[in-house]
Amino acid sequence: MAEGTMVGAFATTEPDASSDLRPQSVQTVAVRHGDTWGLNGRKRWISNSPVAGFVVTLARTDDRLSMFIVDTSLPGVRGGEPDQKMGNRGKLTADVWFEDVELTNDSLLGGEPGHGLRHALATLTLGRIGIAAAGVGMAQAAFDHAVAHLSTREAFGRKLAANQHWQFLMAERATEIENARSLYLKAALRRDDGEVFPEPEASMAKFYGSRLAVDMVRDAVQAFGGLGFARELSADGTPGPVEAIYRDSKIGEIYEGTNEVLKWVIARGIFGKEITG
Amino acid sequence: MAEGTMVGAFATTEPDASSDLRPQSVQTVAVRHGDTWGLNGRKRWISNSPVAGFVVTLARTDDRLSMFIVDTSLPGVRGGEPDQKMGNRGKLTADVWFEDVELTNDSLLGGEPGHGLRHALATLTLGRIGIAAAGVGMAQAAFDHAVAHLSTREAFGRKLAANQHWQFLMAERATEIENARSLYLKAALRRDDGEVFPEPEASMAKFYGSRLAVDMVRDAVQAFGGLGFARELSADGTPGPVEAIYRDSKIGEIYEGTNEVLKWVIARGIFGKEITG
Amino acid sequence: MAEGTMVGAFATTEPDASSDLRPQSVQTVAVRHGDTWGLNGRKRWISNSPVAGFVVTLARTDDRLSMFIVDTSLPGVRGGEPDQKMGNRGKLTADVWFEDVELTNDSLLGGEPGHGLRHALATLTLGRIGIAAAGVGMAQAAFDHAVAHLSTREAFGRKLAANQHWQFLMAERATEIENARSLYLKAALRRDDGEVFPEPEASMAKFYGSRLAVDMVRDAVQAFGGLGFARELSADGTPGPVEAIYRDSKIGEIYEGTNEVLKWVIARGIFGKEITG
Amino acid sequence: MAEGTMVGAFATTEPDASSDLRPQSVQTVAVRHGDTWGLNGRKRWISNSPVAGFVVTLARTDDRLSMFIVDTSLPGVRGGEPDQKMGNRGKLTADVWFEDVELTNDSLLGGEPGHGLRHALATLTLGRIGIAAAGVGMAQAAFDHAVAHLSTREAFGRKLAANQHWQFLMAERATEIENARSLYLKAALRRDDGEVFPEPEASMAKFYGSRLAVDMVRDAVQAFGGLGFARELSADGTPGPVEAIYRDSKIGEIYEGTNEVLKWVIARGIFGKEITG
Repeated sequence: MAEGTMVGAFATTEPDASSDLRPQSVQTVAVRHGDTWGLNGRKRWISNSPVAGFVVTLARTDDRLSMFIVDTSLPGVRGGEPDQKMGNRGKLTADVWFEDVELTNDSLLGGEPGHGLRHALATLTLGRIGIAAAGVGMAQAAFDHAVAHLSTREAFGRKLAANQHWQFLMAERATEIENARSLYLKAALRRDDGEVFPEPEASMAKFYGSRLAVDMVRDAVQAFGGLGFARELSADGTPGPVEAIYRDSKIGEIYEGTNEVLKWVIARGIFGKEITG
Repeated sequence: MAEGTMVGAFATTEPDASSDLRPQSVQTVAVRHGDTWGLNGRKRWISNSPVAGFVVTLARTDDRLSMFIVDTSLPGVRGGEPDQKMGNRGKLTADVWFEDVELTNDSLLGGEPGHGLRHALATLTLGRIGIAAAGVGMAQAAFDHAVAHLSTREAFGRKLAANQHWQFLMAERATEIENARSLYLKAALRRDDGEVFPEPEASMAKFYGSRLAVDMVRDAVQAFGGLGFARELSADGTPGPVEAIYRDSKIGEIYEGTNEVLKWVIARGIFGKEITG
Repeated sequence: MAEGTMVGAFATTEPDASSDLRPQSVQTVAVRHGDTWGLNGRKRWISNSPVAGFVVTLARTDDRLSMFIVDTSLPGVRGGEPDQKMGNRGKLTADVWFEDVELTNDSLLGGEPGHGLRHALATLTLGRIGIAAAGVGMAQAAFDHAVAHLSTREAFGRKLAANQHWQFLMAERATEIENARSLYLKAALRRDDGEVFPEPEASMAKFYGSRLAVDMVRDAVQAFGGLGFARELSADGTPGPVEAIYRDSKIGEIYEGTNEVLKWVIARGIFGKEITG
Repeated sequence: MAEGTMVGAFATTEPDASSDLRPQSVQTVAVRHGDTWGLNGRKRWISNSPVAGFVVTLARTDDRLSMFIVDTSLPGVRGGEPDQKMGNRGKLTADVWFEDVELTNDSLLGGEPGHGLRHALATLTLGRIGIAAAGVGMAQAAFDHAVAHLSTREAFGRKLAANQHWQFLMAERATEIENARSLYLKAALRRDDGEVFPEPEASMAKFYGSRLAVDMVRDAVQAFGGLGFARELSADGTPGPVEAIYRDSKIGEIYEGTNEVLKWVIARGIFGKEITG
């Protein structure tokens, strides 16, 4: 893997279970038959699955959850066509079906059943920091494009950036980008320091950064006007510099724990699980 | 036209002038030669122009503005390829070039030069009410899709709509849709009553309604989760019900007077032109 | 009453029950003794109670709720000192205690027990429209003060209103005031037309109008700067024109059904009581 | 001073000049007469001035600005009565008049005229970090009060904090408090490190932290309901825990550079002084 010879996928979501990873909600089931396991179920929105050599898969084992490393060349594993998405198209997603897939005990992550949720949550928490960082990246890119345009495009005899509206708005956004960057860096530093669940920073960073990306690119599209809405200006082939970011960014608020779930995670830290559930 | 035998286009925007329609900013120029006019210039983002039989065109005549009805079959009129846009693709837009186009005096809207800005603004004001109504329509559609989904989809053992977050958010949006509808209806009623510039309602309705459409469909995408982000779920062909609205809606904040220009229009009514310019 | 010879009060809230008017939450109890009722309990935040000749009081009768008209001169009725409030001080509020107050059957509103909740909700709904209208009034007053100040006060060599920030902000607020006014007028017109519960408009109008008042007066204080924060400028006795509105307005979001409860009412109309509770 | 034997005041604001500290806007003037200066003018909203032993005063000297240390016992110095303010009453403010006050050259801060603006801005920048920190303090206090109340108060048969609305809102606020804290600490660390103008962090920290304080305490008042609006509940003397913070916090958005001026400072860093002025 480290040599880049094989792509892996990570599969927790199902048609009827996404952020809700309680055992009773997970319909993919692995049943032990002596030394092997039989896996059945279906996963959805699985990133990289169309090109993956293996899929790390969350499945119910009895009434707990476990993680299995599933070779995609095994009999009974079937991948669907890539989903047609609005954006983020560089990351292919698709359904994956498991039909009586026979797995050895070695496939069981950690060697013992029942620890799947913890594995899943640790991976998702790490993923959230990455999505937060990606949000900052998209926000910064949109910000930079907007600043360049506002500083050169003229209307009503002056630069767009001479308008106080844009000055104040960009001052706000610059502050928010600074905030979002501090949040994900803090979460990442705690993770690097060995904390598997660097909360509440990871959840804060993910919801705040992904939301900001959508907000900022919306402003950038507005700053560019018609060109912001265009993939390409046919008259001279000018590419619309922010249209793709507009389409890409929204998924950040949704995947690897919706922003709603993350606020619940933060609230649980504030009020205690007894009150928040 | 009323029989639908010919499509018309309306052209005020240029590569370097959009909301800024001061005579000195308009680079399309008509020069009188005895009984005819010679038209030169270039227009951008002209809706319907790829299929239009005529283009009502704003041009500078001396140091004022005039409107001309330009037959697209005339020598010197050239239309570009449709622009590649993020959404709103049912409405084709393109550049239009005018090179020494010879126009008769009959082409001059209103028969006299110098009234072009008023014609343009009257048309744009009417257009704003339409965009406001379209914003309400998109917001309502996104709202309805979201309500249907939230009322049926389950997570954590209950309907999504059982979550107070969604209840309160949708209560807010319902209120805003009610507001947006009242605003455009009031503007439209005043227009029907003969008021050519039903301000500030037309500007209020346009910025508020177009913004709401973007806000609401963003929430609807969030409510649908992954499916909100999808054009189609490849596994079973399920169409993503709100993805197209997400891509379509943003242009409403931009065209026929950006929302920034409209706030300036409203502010001018509050503080007077002497202060606001 | 119509002649203004007597002030009445309306008492539903208790120390441990405010928006929550389920029978089991109401601790004020009336027990029937033959032809009379014995009333015991305590009410809180009762407007006008320090000067009222009677208090229309919500009490539990068996396991339902009833409304009683209680003469404040009756033995066992005791009113507390007016509460020390941040604002809205023209409307005195206080606790009211009932200790073995003997009431005749005539005191029972509507003549029959068990209809108290409906009476209470009808009154509260009417009250909400009034609070919405008061919110619009406070917002409009703050808006007018701000416009006057922004149009005359100079900084950096120009009127404050020459700043695009203030122009756009006031354009937003003007739009919101227009919305808030439409909402409460629509609710009021439906009420005048005989609809006792003109929902969702009454709830929309109340939460939107009361929130707007707080938002708008906050902006007005900001526009006035130091003087906005002052009750009086000691140097020359200039009164701070918006400080009182700042202190008064907040209660509008709280009383006669908190804005949170109202959003729940609206959501119930959207999703149905089965989902929202 | 360090021993606490004397209170000082800092005076830049005037009746007609607050954030606008351009020389032509400052009406307090010091004129050199041989070895002394004659000071005339009037300052406003001068914190601590009613109890100050000296006032560090910004004055115009020729067409530049200078700072003077003015002993309040000197002939011609007169302080006004403390202003009647909505909140922040622990910090007395008043007007200060200077009428032909004779100052020695030693009174001139830095020994040379013309550096007053830099002195003022350095002091104001430091002050902004302090206001940002105070904003965080008020926000945190209001947050803590709200959490305590939401965790114990019941309505509709459950703790207020069991409502998702409050959970999500407090998760947002916790994130914002984290952001505000990071911003002012970063500014302070840069200042401690010798940077006299640690921008944009100081301006970001001040506008963001002061705004957050107002936002958060508004929510806290809402969480407490009627008691949030009360200075004291007369029935039993219960103090309203957040009412004073509500009245205190608003000034943070106004003084030592309004939040509008600070956004301009940030924008100047983004777009350059040539565009933003």
